[in-house]
Amino acid sequence: MKTTLIAITVAAAFGASALCALAAEPIQIIEPAVITEPAKVELGKKLFFEPRLSKSGFLSCNSCHNLSLGGVDAIPTSIGHDWQEGPINAPTVLNAKYMLAQFWDGRAADLQEQAAGPIENPKEMAMEHHIALKVLESIPQYQAEFKAIYGEQGISLSTVTDAIAVFEETLVTPNSRFDQYLAGDHDALSAEEKAGYALFKANACSACHNGPAVGGTSYQKMGLVQPFVTDNPAQGRIDVTGKESDRNVFKVPTLRNIELTYPYFHDGSVWDLTEAVKVMQQVQLGLPLSDEEAGKIAAFLKTLTGEQPQITLPILPPSTAETPRPQPFGQ
Amino acid sequence: MKTTLIAITVAAAFGASALCALAAEPIQIIEPAVITEPAKVELGKKLFFEPRLSKSGFLSCNSCHNLSLGGVDAIPTSIGHDWQEGPINAPTVLNAKYMLAQFWDGRAADLQEQAAGPIENPKEMAMEHHIALKVLESIPQYQAEFKAIYGEQGISLSTVTDAIAVFEETLVTPNSRFDQYLAGDHDALSAEEKAGYALFKANACSACHNGPAVGGTSYQKMGLVQPFVTDNPAQGRIDVTGKESDRNVFKVPTLRNIELTYPYFHDGSVWDLTEAVKVMQQVQLGLPLSDEEAGKIAAFLKTLTGEQPQITLPILPPSTAETPRPQPFGQ
Ligand code: HEC
Ligand code: HEC
Ligand code: HEC
Ligand code: HEC
Ligand SMILES: [Ca+2]
Ligand SMILES: [Ca+2]
Repeated sequence: MKTTLIAITVAAAFGASALCALAAEPIQIIEPAVITEPAKVELGKKLFFEPRLSKSGFLSCNSCHNLSLGGVDAIPTSIGHDWQEGPINAPTVLNAKYMLAQFWDGRAADLQEQAAGPIENPKEMAMEHHIALKVLESIPQYQAEFKAIYGEQGISLSTVTDAIAVFEETLVTPNSRFDQYLAGDHDALSAEEKAGYALFKANACSACHNGPAVGGTSYQKMGLVQPFVTDNPAQGRIDVTGKESDRNVFKVPTLRNIELTYPYFHDGSVWDLTEAVKVMQQVQLGLPLSDEEAGKIAAFLKTLTGEQPQITLPILPPSTAETPRPQPFGQ
Repeated sequence: MKTTLIAITVAAAFGASALCALAAEPIQIIEPAVITEPAKVELGKKLFFEPRLSKSGFLSCNSCHNLSLGGVDAIPTSIGHDWQEGPINAPTVLNAKYMLAQFWDGRAADLQEQAAGPIENPKEMAMEHHIALKVLESIPQYQAEFKAIYGEQGISLSTVTDAIAVFEETLVTPNSRFDQYLAGDHDALSAEEKAGYALFKANACSACHNGPAVGGTSYQKMGLVQPFVTDNPAQGRIDVTGKESDRNVFKVPTLRNIELTYPYFHDGSVWDLTEAVKVMQQVQLGLPLSDEEAGKIAAFLKTLTGEQPQITLPILPPSTAETPRPQPFGQ
């Protein structure tokens, strides 16, 4: 609200120039990553791709947050250790740094706190933290890298998760066509896409989906005006706060790169973006949208696909005689 | 044999200069990849990383031939669809183009023929070929890429496997310390490593492990002088030829990057390289090696680790409404 008021004031002061008008938009430009600690980012990337942080030796963060696929696994619920079915759709790690908290229910305050979860989660990587640390400690190249970056702290859960988080902070997707439009290039969007954006604002989508990530700024009830019917047992933020009013309240997901992060919703039940837009309109706002209007909004949403992070696959240092062996099967 | 004779002749003609002496070595230098069809390599890379070629939408070639891990999964036997345990240790895809044929038993003539196997193998990617092709056909970016590269042929099993094979041909690991040594840099190896190489030749390891890939030039009986004890039911090349004399005969694996491709042997039973050297000496040659000698050979073998392919992670084009949905669980 504050930002909007300031923007309007500025716009008034300078005349309603295109630039100033855009400054009042509900969505802000994503800035390219500024890398201040390249060695730490490189280490975090290794850890993000490190299957030896899982019990099987097979699953890494990138298995479920595949950076070839917009940072998701693109299936309704994830495949974890022993092919166990996960409880909820995996959100993207792209632009996750803009989220007010991590996980659908916001139970982790930040990326560092989040990263400790999946390693030990028995349905995900199923690896006791102390064994994960032993794996890294058994490998001289990791020892040297942690020492160079963290000095005395060396290899610990907190340095491991710090490095992963710092890598994840670089996973932003700037320069989408919509950002180009925000930056003043009016030709970056087609007429249909502009109409979709106008509908997005007019229909109050932007009341919930706003900020640089077009989401991730608040928790909201899923099924505000009409229940969202799902088999998925997730209860949302009530699990964190214990408050009945937080039942079915979820972190508003980012709509950046939404073209890539199908299937949609916390249960991964909807594959088609236009369909997802219609569901939103129905359960959150209660006003029917025509197919044409929903299509326009979907067309606008596809302009939010940004430049994907250019990742050079890390080359991981080999295990040694001291490295705890992976346990892929029935142990 | 021919090469050796020529090399000796050349060496005689010019005097036994270092270079000419080295030309007679059983191991040849790995040359860097020369990329003549960059668009095809790029497409093949996408397909190598494409989990939508699997029934689950989760497994790609890179899941089991992880290019962060020397082209293997680094577990004794692979994890396939539905976490099924594979029958045999996954060989590396690095330098696979130098193999006289593909698979442990040589049942595929070349990389292109090989690539069709894992997609449809119910224990690997478990994806009927016609559905895999439908996935690619449903995605306009793939359609355009195949058309630009293959013209009329478009998307077919043969073009898909051709692109994968052409990508795999680029997965060579030149410029190992041993290659530098072969190229004339005598300081590239330590005294211990040189001693290990001398033992490797003196003990006739190089009778089987030779050529640029230090293996892959012949089929040989595993357990030539003493049986190799294993629970693994694989019978080797007899499955291809039907000849009793081919029981327990396997393609000699490459020793390039052997430091990275643990665990060893077709059953993945041995994790330690020095131990693997001792097993070889015992079952193939019958002459005991001291720990010290085996250690020297292992030290030499580690000089065969070459420059790993620098892979920029491909960004895969999104699915469409026409794309067959992945079936990760119980369908
Ligand atoms: C087996 C699949 C799987 C693996 C492996 C996995 N994740 Fe996740 N990830 C998920 C799922 C599912 C969620 C959503 C869980 C929830 O919200 O309750 C999630 C949530 C997240 C989030 C929160 C994003 C948001 O917007 O709320 C981040 C960040 C994340 N994962 C990073 C990682 C990192 C880092 C690793 C490795 C250390 C990792 N994940 C490993 C499946 C996985
Ligand atoms: C009252 C808040 C609110 C409003 C208004 C709202 N959304 Fe949402 N939106 C959410 C929440 C919360 C979710 C996650 C719900 C879930 O998965 O349980 C969501 C999910 C989505 C998704 C799926 C994202 C994903 O990655 O799964 C899309 C697409 C979407 N919204 C678009 C829209 C559009 C378009 C509008 C307007 C027509 C809109 N939303 C209005 C809160 C809102
Ligand atoms: C589920 C694990 C898994 C997947 C997925 C997988 N492979 Fe393999 N791969 C193996 C195993 C195990 C073998 C050995 C099989 C045998 O020899 O009988 C193998 C053998 C090979 C070989 C032969 C190497 C040699 O020296 O003989 C090549 C090349 C290869 N795979 C490439 C691929 C390609 C390309 C894909 C994807 C289209 C792929 N693999 C998918 C596990 C896998
Ligand atoms: C008569 C042929 C022959 C001789 C001689 C031989 N090898 Fe082998 N080697 C093989 C075959 C065949 C295999 C694969 C056996 C299997 O896994 O079933 C193998 C496997 C290996 C492996 C494991 C490779 C992997 O990736 O799993 C190593 C290491 C090795 N040999 C080193 C040596 C050394 C060192 C010597 C000499 C002391 C030697 N070999 C002598 C044929 C031979
Ligand atoms: Ca999703
Ligand atoms: Ca191996």
